[in-house]
Amino acid sequence: MNANQLRPKEAYNVAIAGATGAVGETFLNILEQRNFPINTLKLYASKRSKGKQVTFKGTTYTIEELTEDSFKDIDIALFSAGGAQSKKYAPFAVKAGAVVVDNSSAFRLDPEVPLVVPEVNPEDVVWHNGIISNPNCTTIIMLVALKPLHDYSRVKQVFVSTYQSASGAGAQAMEELKQQVRDWAAGRDLSVNKFTHQLLYNVIPHIDTFQDNGYTGEEMKMFNETKKILHDDEVRVSATCVRIPVLYSHSESVTVMTEEPISPEKARELFNNAPGLKVNDNPDGCEYPMPLGSQFQDDCYVGRIRENIAAENALNFWISGDQIRKGAALNAIQIAELLVKNAQKANPALKDVSGF
Amino acid sequence: MNANQLRPKEAYNVAIAGATGAVGETFLNILEQRNFPINTLKLYASKRSKGKQVTFKGTTYTIEELTEDSFKDIDIALFSAGGAQSKKYAPFAVKAGAVVVDNSSAFRLDPEVPLVVPEVNPEDVVWHNGIISNPNCTTIIMLVALKPLHDYSRVKQVFVSTYQSASGAGAQAMEELKQQVRDWAAGRDLSVNKFTHQLLYNVIPHIDTFQDNGYTGEEMKMFNETKKILHDDEVRVSATCVRIPVLYSHSESVTVMTEEPISPEKARELFNNAPGLKVNDNPDGCEYPMPLGSQFQDDCYVGRIRENIAAENALNFWISGDQIRKGAALNAIQIAELLVKNAQKANPALKDVSGF
Repeated sequence: MNANQLRPKEAYNVAIAGATGAVGETFLNILEQRNFPINTLKLYASKRSKGKQVTFKGTTYTIEELTEDSFKDIDIALFSAGGAQSKKYAPFAVKAGAVVVDNSSAFRLDPEVPLVVPEVNPEDVVWHNGIISNPNCTTIIMLVALKPLHDYSRVKQVFVSTYQSASGAGAQAMEELKQQVRDWAAGRDLSVNKFTHQLLYNVIPHIDTFQDNGYTGEEMKMFNETKKILHDDEVRVSATCVRIPVLYSHSESVTVMTEEPISPEKARELFNNAPGLKVNDNPDGCEYPMPLGSQFQDDCYVGRIRENIAAENALNFWISGDQIRKGAALNAIQIAELLVKNAQKANPALKDVSGF
Repeated sequence: MNANQLRPKEAYNVAIAGATGAVGETFLNILEQRNFPINTLKLYASKRSKGKQVTFKGTTYTIEELTEDSFKDIDIALFSAGGAQSKKYAPFAVKAGAVVVDNSSAFRLDPEVPLVVPEVNPEDVVWHNGIISNPNCTTIIMLVALKPLHDYSRVKQVFVSTYQSASGAGAQAMEELKQQVRDWAAGRDLSVNKFTHQLLYNVIPHIDTFQDNGYTGEEMKMFNETKKILHDDEVRVSATCVRIPVLYSHSESVTVMTEEPISPEKARELFNNAPGLKVNDNPDGCEYPMPLGSQFQDDCYVGRIRENIAAENALNFWISGDQIRKGAALNAIQIAELLVKNAQKANPALKDVSGF
């Protein structure tokens, strides 16, 4: 048994680090919706947000400043305060005995830290040493669809181009796009602060910082995290990650090459039986995944399923998912739920209290 | 010598069929900018636009209704009135002795009709029988970049995902997006008529009608037209064509697999020396092709040039081009210019009057 394994309890002491951000707010909504078994709830953010009040299940909570001492008696700490804050404060949460589910990229490629999409590699939650990482949002959305294909015939190569929403850059970035819309409609000059260029009526092929190989950090996350989550060092992902003027949900145009061919019919069947995925593939009825359809949804939507007509053993599909929910907050809470379920297995008398 | 070869003249009688559409208006701008040698100019559109007035080089022209008798004494007829109109009226223009440059998809795959991108296959203008087709806009933009690579090492396979602007669906469709922006800013309900779904804050993976194989007409144009333009039946293009909330310019995320490897450095050199293309590839300075940079420009912009890290002999790049200019009106006029140049070669005394 490793450090900080969750003990079986009827309810847990939960802390959220980064409670006022876009993901933090969604943490609260999802914990409430899914009736996560919470005993006490502590909400942390930076000094700037200290004293702010939020409501959870009818009770008002005051945001406290995240410090080294924030995790006394905490069982589960959900982190979404950025990589620097995770690196600084997660070790204190671990020291205090909590299991950290971290939404940042800080520990994702650490061999001591499991990187988990519950629909893909739930088995990896058991070997943590106090920290479990939540993958990059575009990677999660893609892997929910790749996993059932990979189980049927090994995924060898993936080519993906993304269509990522403004909210992926944070609440203020999304507000910048909305303000550009308002300013354009009013005939005013547009302001650009959060993005590198005007996003309204534009497309920015630049998410995260550029690496020496010409790929961005976001693109390399898809490459590296896919290997780790699928436990397959040979799978290769070449991504082009692109910001577009959409508020919520990331969409992805995916070509996947597998060891054996997978027909569109077989892929549709595999997708239909896969958790976390809804097939939305009726093009004649103008039905296909779109951000306006997938936003605020737990499931990812997959469609445009068809043979790739340029290569053998290659399939094309199009997927859209809410990157704040499935790509971040929901996935992290599903990890916490897995921890709780595994803990409660150790005490069958508690089984019934798990309401999710 | 085939039918309707252009004769050497100092200036030509030009007709535009579809003069009031987005492409038609751009025809006029470009003919004026490039000082195309025009003797008389006739402007045609549907009955609805009859009587409308437009200015060209300071002279007012009245739009006339397109009929079977519209092409008497016309040397060059530029068509951009949709496939049905081209099918109906282009034969009358040919019969009257004109060379038709047709922007619709009506004749593109007809083996009797050359399909020409002047930077790619200028030699094909010579074997026409009265009609030369202008390729699909996304195909043109992609081929301007593929051609220099193909000349260096044969292009075998192409995977492309597009980011296509609203104006590609016509002036009214673009107006629909603008109106959605105004309505959203004013808190009003949004109207949807021209697109299958709301385009503001959305992505629609559906351009043109769906075929039996799950691809759209637009996607199959990229497949079929690339073969014809490159005179290579083995090259295979698998495209996913996507409408996004942008006003002008199409962008494309392209993976190209070649017979021999092409390094990013070599590709950059090839692109730098290619006509119709500007390299815009300084990611550390946040410089890469974007619709707001390529709109209203004659050249296509290429960047994000890098090795594909999922496959051998594969290169990724990102291209953005104004699909109304290079993707339609400019390309058609460049075809007409080629015809004029070839005709004037037959009469060296006229050489100097070609001002472009």
